Amino acid sequence: MTETMNRALLPAGLHDVLPREAAFEATIVERLMAEFALNGFERVKPPLIEFEASLLSGPGAAMATQTFRLMDPISQRMLAIRPDMTLQVARIAVTRLANEPRPLRLSYGGQVLRVKGSQLRPERQFGQVGVELIGALQPTADAEVVLLAYAALKAVGAANISVDLNVPTLVPSVCRGLDLPEDETARLRQALDRKDAAEVAAVGGRAADLLAGMMGASGPADRAVELLAGLDLPEEAEADRRRLTEVVRLIRDAAPELMLTVDPVEHRGFEYQTGTSFTLFSRGVRGELGRGGRYRAGGGPSGEPSTGFTLYLDTVLRAVPDPAPAPRLFLPIGTDAADGARLRSEGWITVRALEALDDPAAEARRLRCTHIFTGGQVHPAA
Amino acid sequence: MTETMNRALLPAGLHDVLPREAAFEATIVERLMAEFALNGFERVKPPLIEFEASLLSGPGAAMATQTFRLMDPISQRMLAIRPDMTLQVARIAVTRLANEPRPLRLSYGGQVLRVKGSQLRPERQFGQVGVELIGALQPTADAEVVLLAYAALKAVGAANISVDLNVPTLVPSVCRGLDLPEDETARLRQALDRKDAAEVAAVGGRAADLLAGMMGASGPADRAVELLAGLDLPEEAEADRRRLTEVVRLIRDAAPELMLTVDPVEHRGFEYQTGTSFTLFSRGVRGELGRGGRYRAGGGPSGEPSTGFTLYLDTVLRAVPDPAPAPRLFLPIGTDAADGARLRSEGWITVRALEALDDPAAEARRLRCTHIFTGGQVHPAA
Repeated sequence: MTETMNRALLPAGLHDVLPREAAFEATIVERLMAEFALNGFERVKPPLIEFEASLLSGPGAAMATQTFRLMDPISQRMLAIRPDMTLQVARIAVTRLANEPRPLRLSYGGQVLRVKGSQLRPERQFGQVGVELIGALQPTADAEVVLLAYAALKAVGAANISVDLNVPTLVPSVCRGLDLPEDETARLRQALDRKDAAEVAAVGGRAADLLAGMMGASGPADRAVELLAGLDLPEEAEADRRRLTEVVRLIRDAAPELMLTVDPVEHRGFEYQTGTSFTLFSRGVRGELGRGGRYRAGGGPSGEPSTGFTLYLDTVLRAVPDPAPAPRLFLPIGTDAADGARLRSEGWITVRALEALDDPAAEARRLRCTHIFTGGQVHPAA
Repeated sequence: MTETMNRALLPAGLHDVLPREAAFEATIVERLMAEFALNGFERVKPPLIEFEASLLSGPGAAMATQTFRLMDPISQRMLAIRPDMTLQVARIAVTRLANEPRPLRLSYGGQVLRVKGSQLRPERQFGQVGVELIGALQPTADAEVVLLAYAALKAVGAANISVDLNVPTLVPSVCRGLDLPEDETARLRQALDRKDAAEVAAVGGRAADLLAGMMGASGPADRAVELLAGLDLPEEAEADRRRLTEVVRLIRDAAPELMLTVDPVEHRGFEYQTGTSFTLFSRGVRGELGRGGRYRAGGGPSGEPSTGFTLYLDTVLRAVPDPAPAPRLFLPIGTDAADGARLRSEGWITVRALEALDDPAAEARRLRCTHIFTGGQVHPAA
């Protein structure tokens, strides 16, 4: 027994997913992927491991401390287990699919591993599903991915979804546009991260005024874009603002009922993003359902303008209603194979007896069957 | 460009699966899993990595040289990436699901990694899908898993399926039953592995006669069981033979059209198996579609009598017809969101325009769309 117990022991943050839950998870993944496919996003499947040098190059470097590494006895080079699929999909887009017409719509779903769980997500293995829309600079692209995330989450039954829009480039644009010295920029950035209005005001000058105005605009999207429109932003920041306004308009037009907020000074977690970004929540559910936003596929300013999102499966599963237990139909020995096939084609889950039984109904109940097939008919097993 | 090309480089035996193929693979997996679920097999999902000591203990030791290992900085212990899912599922059955009623029907689908590909299967990452039927000694259990593999493969469109039945315990039973010395047993085993009838005969004695008779029985199942019935087998081997005969009868009754053969002297690749085993083929397709058979879950003679099978996804994909390309419908800018939703609910894959276009039909064709939605109607894009 001790040996058996030892064998059941798994490393921290790793789990066996058991019946019901495993099937439910797979169903949710396939429904999300089906929604992506119906919207023209085509599935790709990168490998679980890659050369460390390619997986962790460029923007991947940020994940280096989170990544399991191993030696490949074949190539004698270091490999890494993917901690994230987004960069793999971007890699596929700019290499193998470089000659496909743009915009390129790709989707993906798979498992990732991280060396350490976080406080919010102690799991070290979890599922990611998402899309990338590559080679598209238009605000319609930003709106499309937000609306797709919303539609897909609704399709799997997630309720009370809200989207928080951010523009992580906006604060830097303001500071750059006003030629703010580096130390003041850093001080403002810190104050904004703490949402410390007093500290922002203490810096003084036009930048502090503008940033205070931006911070005050945080909240429901319609009000936020109205307040931001009243600010006299430097040129680059003004372009960001106009773009955000257009994205908000497109989303509001297509989904007026969606709870949409804007936080124009938030940037944490979006270090990789180059424009309109967003986080998805479900009211009352701990953690983010997912996040996404603009980036340059291939990395650097010469990369292809792209946007996309990743949904975190563990959080999504907490946000959707538990599935009803499926009825199970016990087939006593001697049941005709054709009857079994017909019943399954009608959607019954069938459970075969392996031997003749004195009391088939009792056996049906023991095997958690809700129904039993006797005399050519389905009967409740209770 | 050189940097981009380098990033595209993957370790030998690892691949990016691209659109069409990735979607097709996922569809096949889910159809197989759906067939398993309809037959009462419930999905479990073990983690990609485990403690090396538990993953490679007992029967797992045979996979040790095929397994990637890595250090866990959290537990400071060695982890292993699973080279196979069968043993993980057996582990779940005898630990976490020890108190579930037997027989326990479990299914699984996921990716495995191996240090080296084989000549027949150069891939180092591939998908496994399968079932385990745990805690059942009856021949009906053996027949059930063979018939389920057959039904599932038919359901995904694999044609010309054949099943080769083996009893890897039969030759050892004969040799033990006749108190054959070890060296003669080894000599006969080698001769049988080479299908070398002359060498078998050269050993002489009753064992050589029986084994020659068994070797001659290889072929179509009905003939094989008839020929085996004419042999005067020692007690233990006779029990194996009767069981095989019953399994053949059950399979032939339920699926008379299935090409079913028996090779009573084959054992290679079934070192782990303790009874009726089988290999699945599709005529004209290179490699095995899958294999399965009896074993003891938990390992050792005290383990639970179990049977199951694993399908190899790469071979299965070669055995099923390529999917027809799906029609894609281009939605010009300004298409009503409700129209798009309705068209998708009718099964259309829609591809949104991101801006107003002078020639939407040309753009539709450029994006590989077969149809375009204009004037409230679907039109061919050609």
